[in-house]
Amino acid sequence: MSLSKELIQKLDQVMNARSVALLGATDSPERVGYQLLESLIAGKYGGNLYPVHPRHKELLGLKVYPSLAEIPETVDLALIALNQQKTVEAVRECGQRGVKGAVCVAGGFKEVGAEGKALEKELAAAAGETDLMVIGPNTLGFFNSDINLNATFYPEQPPKGNGISVISQSGGVGRAIIEVLRDEGLGMNKWVGAGNRTVLEFSDYVDYLAEDKATRVIVLFIEGTEKGRELMDACGRAAKRKPVLIYRAGNSELAKQSAVTHTGSMISSPKLFSDACKQFGVIEAGSVPELVSKAKALSLCPPFKGERIGIMTHTAGPSITLLDGLAAADCRLAEFTPQTMVRLQEMFHGVPVILKNPLDAAAFGYSPEGYGQVAEMVMADPNVDILVVMHALHKNWKFAAREMVKLKDKYKKPVVACYISTQVGAEENRQILQPAGIPCFSSTETAAWGIAGCIEAMRVNHGR
Amino acid sequence: MSLSKELIQKLDQVMNARSVALLGATDSPERVGYQLLESLIAGKYGGNLYPVHPRHKELLGLKVYPSLAEIPETVDLALIALNQQKTVEAVRECGQRGVKGAVCVAGGFKEVGAEGKALEKELAAAAGETDLMVIGPNTLGFFNSDINLNATFYPEQPPKGNGISVISQSGGVGRAIIEVLRDEGLGMNKWVGAGNRTVLEFSDYVDYLAEDKATRVIVLFIEGTEKGRELMDACGRAAKRKPVLIYRAGNSELAKQSAVTHTGSMISSPKLFSDACKQFGVIEAGSVPELVSKAKALSLCPPFKGERIGIMTHTAGPSITLLDGLAAADCRLAEFTPQTMVRLQEMFHGVPVILKNPLDAAAFGYSPEGYGQVAEMVMADPNVDILVVMHALHKNWKFAAREMVKLKDKYKKPVVACYISTQVGAEENRQILQPAGIPCFSSTETAAWGIAGCIEAMRVNHGR
Repeated sequence: MSLSKELIQKLDQVMNARSVALLGATDSPERVGYQLLESLIAGKYGGNLYPVHPRHKELLGLKVYPSLAEIPETVDLALIALNQQKTVEAVRECGQRGVKGAVCVAGGFKEVGAEGKALEKELAAAAGETDLMVIGPNTLGFFNSDINLNATFYPEQPPKGNGISVISQSGGVGRAIIEVLRDEGLGMNKWVGAGNRTVLEFSDYVDYLAEDKATRVIVLFIEGTEKGRELMDACGRAAKRKPVLIYRAGNSELAKQSAVTHTGSMISSPKLFSDACKQFGVIEAGSVPELVSKAKALSLCPPFKGERIGIMTHTAGPSITLLDGLAAADCRLAEFTPQTMVRLQEMFHGVPVILKNPLDAAAFGYSPEGYGQVAEMVMADPNVDILVVMHALHKNWKFAAREMVKLKDKYKKPVVACYISTQVGAEENRQILQPAGIPCFSSTETAAWGIAGCIEAMRVNHGR
Repeated sequence: MSLSKELIQKLDQVMNARSVALLGATDSPERVGYQLLESLIAGKYGGNLYPVHPRHKELLGLKVYPSLAEIPETVDLALIALNQQKTVEAVRECGQRGVKGAVCVAGGFKEVGAEGKALEKELAAAAGETDLMVIGPNTLGFFNSDINLNATFYPEQPPKGNGISVISQSGGVGRAIIEVLRDEGLGMNKWVGAGNRTVLEFSDYVDYLAEDKATRVIVLFIEGTEKGRELMDACGRAAKRKPVLIYRAGNSELAKQSAVTHTGSMISSPKLFSDACKQFGVIEAGSVPELVSKAKALSLCPPFKGERIGIMTHTAGPSITLLDGLAAADCRLAEFTPQTMVRLQEMFHGVPVILKNPLDAAAFGYSPEGYGQVAEMVMADPNVDILVVMHALHKNWKFAAREMVKLKDKYKKPVVACYISTQVGAEENRQILQPAGIPCFSSTETAAWGIAGCIEAMRVNHGR
């Protein structure tokens, strides 16, 4: 069952909460009730904040309220940092008082056995009385970097998004996704740790993000769910509007048992899952780096209109490891037109190099201008749909970052850069390239995933 | 054919050259003859340096000699930054004047067709007259960080090694390996860009590194070779003494053609190659990150004595992605003894958590001391051969790095750390862990590769 339009709107009000109550606020820095408050402050949340505690008067410079009832407004969101039993009561009270949604961080529900399972049923019933939008339980919470709302117990300012939103069954893997996004010079718009999904299911979050304007790429990490059909239906609906990426872990026999204990969910076979992804137009990834690389390229590049790749490099070996990566993802190379070959022959006159795709321009020199000129010949070729430009770190070689931005704008074709280092010059080039819509990868493995992701999204759009 | 003991010694004198001549030194910063000189200086080479040029008197503060003949000593190594024709002449002269070895950077040999092929035969003949140890041609050169010798045209101080030496067919991929090693807080001892291998073959470098005391792990990147049998024989000999890792690219149809043009070498099928690796005790890797992760763990960890893995975490999801990675590499988990289970039950009394391997200690709290206590129970279990400890970044949680070092020393079992971030705290923890022999990985993917590499090396040693 999918959320009604009204409930999607309600969830949107929760994600964009104008006011937040924190039940279970505390002055013990090692406790979640303290860290959630730290997070709201570190994230620079601008809405109204109401810590709740029966005795404290002030916490981290904020006035503390003795109970939910005594907060002077009806808050949009409650963060519940109480134990599992008290969480159920708090959820009921939140609903009765008109709160729209709640984050329940407590564990100790279905993931710990029969007793927890019964308690989780109570939680569901309590929330159901008023359709309270419950995130969790057993969750880190959520981020909405669009409004600087860090509703997790990881105090930090979340890195700003570029259209990527993340739904993660696991808080830890969700955090790993944030770390890798940050390493890639990116952030996320919305981020949800789905936890036990007592009320809100993966499919609900997917339906919501499909509607969310700030979200242009939906990223999912899951371990398993009994509601696979609902999830795939929602992904299929969303994939008609924006790319949907999924990494499902726990495929191995070794991992399966742990995944079941962690989330209490069953796992279908990898083959069944992959077939379902293909059928519903969902793009699969096999690891966090693959997931993030695909999301990165999809969020930065314009939509691909063709899949013939032209590659330019000044370092031959890495172009071969890139080709291996592209081949694994069923990508193909452009064949340069005879006209391009003639123009390249004129340009490379007397230079001992075999002219082909990938084009190794090393013998032509290392100036950004020269690199730009050769790249333009590849870009101008009507057989080339995508230009990939590779650069190996060298103290004396400047990457033609600005030239690549000009080419992209002039020819209206996507450009993907592979600058093989995270160090010297990497950040400087990334800051020129990425805001201009050219993803800059630091390895051929990640670059190949990125390109493959965009090609897969194009194939989904074309119904292939 | 393998190098005689005398020639291996000669190559060792080249790699550890006490004096270097640079033929083709120049004052044009964009030229290789200048960059090689920059590299020798940037690397802080301490031996005697003799730039050679017919007219210049001084370059970068160094006295320039008009010819090789006028250098006041017989140098161990000549770096030849001349075009392909002049390179052949220079090689002959070097040999005649008693130079032991030469790096030939020029391209334009067999990789550009028939004419180049003929010239390369001349080069081989010229070197053969005196058994000059020629590295290249068509190479970046080599590093020996043990003596601060940067004999490449990439000016920098090479990151110091921890027993890892690298042989790369491609300079660009070889550079990528250095970049990833640096990202992992490591460096390399010897590093050779093998180039066209006119004189020195992969097998020669492998034989040499097998003898080299500073080298404890041999890392190869290749695209293809006609001398696959010689390579595998050499790797087999070396693997009896130290781990040998290989990443072969160009396996895909897409890449094969490019690999042939790049190196003029043929490629056998992936299946044949993998079978050969198994037969000869060589550890395969499928990418640069996998290659470096395996080398990292092998260079830092003590040799594994068993393969039963005990995992401790405070973040469940990542332990599942780790298990997927381990399963892919055919690793297995330890089963805790009943005694350990009893001790854990006492410790976790009343805490709602399922006690199993991987052990999720989150509910027990996040203090380094508490983490250390739980980890010790896992480490002390006689069924556990390897302890893997996972940590997700959190502002308020300190990783138990020092506790892990103590455990490793007390129980004499290998420890592998997975600290899931490259940012906050990552460097600080790495600097405690890695010098103490605990590799610290920033993702579960790289951690799984590292663990798998050590297990594969153990299986090679045990003849499995």
